[in-house]
Amino acid sequence: MKFLILLVAPGLVAPVFAADFSRQDIQTARELRAQTLAGNGGFDVVEELTTRIGPRLAGSSADARAVDWAETLLKDLGFDRVWREPATFPTWSRGFENVRVVHPVEQRMAALAIGFSPATPPDGLEAEVVMFDDLAALQAADPATISERIVFIRNRMERARDGSGYGPAVQARARAAMVAAELGAAAVIIRSIGTSTNRFAHTGGMRFDTSQRRVPAAAISNPDADQLERLLALDEPVRVAMEIDAQVIESYTSHNVIAEITGARYPDQIVALGAHLDSWDVGTGALDDGAGIAIITEAGRRILALDRRPDRSVRLIFFAAEEIGLWGGRAWAQARRDRIGDYQVAAESDFGAGPIYSISARVADEAWPVIQAIQTELEPLGIGLGERQASGGPDFLPALPLGLAVVDLDQDGTHYFDYHHTENDTLDKIDPDELAQNAAAYAVFAWLAAQSPVGFGSGPGLLSDSTE
Amino acid sequence: MKFLILLVAPGLVAPVFAADFSRQDIQTARELRAQTLAGNGGFDVVEELTTRIGPRLAGSSADARAVDWAETLLKDLGFDRVWREPATFPTWSRGFENVRVVHPVEQRMAALAIGFSPATPPDGLEAEVVMFDDLAALQAADPATISERIVFIRNRMERARDGSGYGPAVQARARAAMVAAELGAAAVIIRSIGTSTNRFAHTGGMRFDTSQRRVPAAAISNPDADQLERLLALDEPVRVAMEIDAQVIESYTSHNVIAEITGARYPDQIVALGAHLDSWDVGTGALDDGAGIAIITEAGRRILALDRRPDRSVRLIFFAAEEIGLWGGRAWAQARRDRIGDYQVAAESDFGAGPIYSISARVADEAWPVIQAIQTELEPLGIGLGERQASGGPDFLPALPLGLAVVDLDQDGTHYFDYHHTENDTLDKIDPDELAQNAAAYAVFAWLAAQSPVGFGSGPGLLSDSTE
Repeated sequence: MKFLILLVAPGLVAPVFAADFSRQDIQTARELRAQTLAGNGGFDVVEELTTRIGPRLAGSSADARAVDWAETLLKDLGFDRVWREPATFPTWSRGFENVRVVHPVEQRMAALAIGFSPATPPDGLEAEVVMFDDLAALQAADPATISERIVFIRNRMERARDGSGYGPAVQARARAAMVAAELGAAAVIIRSIGTSTNRFAHTGGMRFDTSQRRVPAAAISNPDADQLERLLALDEPVRVAMEIDAQVIESYTSHNVIAEITGARYPDQIVALGAHLDSWDVGTGALDDGAGIAIITEAGRRILALDRRPDRSVRLIFFAAEEIGLWGGRAWAQARRDRIGDYQVAAESDFGAGPIYSISARVADEAWPVIQAIQTELEPLGIGLGERQASGGPDFLPALPLGLAVVDLDQDGTHYFDYHHTENDTLDKIDPDELAQNAAAYAVFAWLAAQSPVGFGSGPGLLSDSTE
Repeated sequence: MKFLILLVAPGLVAPVFAADFSRQDIQTARELRAQTLAGNGGFDVVEELTTRIGPRLAGSSADARAVDWAETLLKDLGFDRVWREPATFPTWSRGFENVRVVHPVEQRMAALAIGFSPATPPDGLEAEVVMFDDLAALQAADPATISERIVFIRNRMERARDGSGYGPAVQARARAAMVAAELGAAAVIIRSIGTSTNRFAHTGGMRFDTSQRRVPAAAISNPDADQLERLLALDEPVRVAMEIDAQVIESYTSHNVIAEITGARYPDQIVALGAHLDSWDVGTGALDDGAGIAIITEAGRRILALDRRPDRSVRLIFFAAEEIGLWGGRAWAQARRDRIGDYQVAAESDFGAGPIYSISARVADEAWPVIQAIQTELEPLGIGLGERQASGGPDFLPALPLGLAVVDLDQDGTHYFDYHHTENDTLDKIDPDELAQNAAAYAVFAWLAAQSPVGFGSGPGLLSDSTE
């Protein structure tokens, strides 16, 4: 039934091994694609998650309810095995925040404390604002200009399809509270790391390092950051009052929830699809990452509904505590540090519900033709061939140093950072048709990866064998 | 210099008096149009108002600062006369609101108390939610199904260029708190009267009638209303907890601020341009109605900069306390009840900064050809001829029963109700080019109305003389 043709293509720099799937496997992939594309992309799943659970910050009571919900859901869907694996981490709880300009005018700002911000003194703090273009400018500043002041970092995230504006801008959120503390500041305000001009602050995590002192830190919305810049341009001292109530929780144990479709021929070889179950505590975590949970669940249940099991096992992993430090991903990788070779390939959906436009992969050379063959079956979904490098998504990052083979199904993130980590990340922001395109791509990818005539090269060898 | 040609057009039902402006007046109108269109539309004015004053609820300390700011601005711009006129009204002050679902799940809702909502008891209230399609359905309901419950009215405002979705939907905001009180409800929640799917609640006023009991009332954002509907569809009782802190202020005196360009020939005949200076207490009142303040100020200063004064006087009126009951407009009309005939015509800008697409007028028959002639000069701005009826804008409504001739420069309001009465009504939502189109239209209209060869018919006679 299955045949593998090796082609030697002398015109190319590296030898290329073209891999053909059986006709039946291709036929099944096409049926999966058509059926999944015609479906709802798992919209019912994200609807239920965001309605019945809502926001689910790692370590909150809603986190525990989400884990129970997920386990029940996956069992009810009839996966062959469903289980949970623990992940232990420090977390944080928001009380409230209140940021307002008090001089030269009184104006409230739309603000959110940054995750792991310490609380202000109970009566709050008030200080003059000093503005910096970005984190580097703050780092280069004379401490005398900063002492006892509120540092405002105004760097603005740029919009891009691949979300590439996030990395440079997010440094301010991740590190300013520590850098400012070292320079003697009273507190930090940043322009939200987000692309919307709607008046929502974007929260998110900061680097959590208990050995370093941090000052209270909050993000303000883009319109409020514009307003603060205008007020500073009046050339009068601008004073801001801040109150933050928040608490660090030293240790909490949540769980990754894992569901398996057990492979018929190679049950110990695994194709892993990931998404994270936790969310920030504002919004209902619809795009981040209820959409990913929906997409991989829909892909999984479509494969489960086939009249035969795939050759390899397909696992869904609902990761815990991604937002506050990839703790589910770390625990997952740590538990597999000696057997990463069991994994054929892994891919996480964690970039909202925008359509997928290309497939990229970090796999062994001999598997690249398989990726090309998979892309051929994704082409009718509008998905081209991407890069020969990939991250696999945030929760698989901790497994990359082990040599995990990974694929990225690259999503259009043009609008993702309009909603990311805001109160506005709600179900209505998801287009079921786009969700279905995503789910169809994951279903086809997972199915074909499970039927691949070659392995993808996971293991310590992949790092050096990789073409990149 | 000026000549008036009377044409008898026997083919038309009503006699038409075609009115020609002098060549010089037309030339001036065209220069005004070109110069104003090339300008910033008064963006500097709304920038200063929203930055230095910000939100300015009628009766707040910011209201008083706004009045001072306006008087100084208009004097500094060199208007011939600037003065204030008192308006006294009851007002309301928001403390805070907190609306959350407590069963079957715990979820906070993005909510704003409706203006003139009473406070809840200090510990808040909690009750089961009962949903109605609209105010009429509530009015028709059996009181037994409502008693001690929280009434939720889910009617959704429809988007339309002319804002026509507002009127039908807003009944719920205006009256539900009184209707529900009469039926024995504990409180009211409405779906926000707004068109955005962003998670902002839209505040606004309710009918204020001290003789009728009202229950506490809040608006929730469209995504939260969707969520509440989904929760109610689970067929379990849904319970909501509400806390509102708010206060009615019996009497406050603010001021309309008026600036005049005194006419050279008929100083006692007045063309009145209006906008309102107050705003709701959320957002910075940029679109509602900082934009209107900018537009008429820019039109006024462009006319002021001409090398001659217009024949009639042109007045700018910055109305007080529009949002909470048209109090500035009422005081203005009341003070002019015996001399409305002094007014050539009036028009208010209070619909954001979207482009103007037509001119409509409620004027005497003999003045309609003048409106047509003015429209000819507005045509290059993309402005067509509208209806032979108009309201003049909210602050001139109280003067309509006196027979005030009014013009509407009809604005595209497709997106206006995305921002109206929300925290998200901020400066960045204004496009300076669209603002300049508006200002150019007001400048041309005001100039030509001041130079018109005929009167527009203001006075008790207009009501019966009107073609409509």
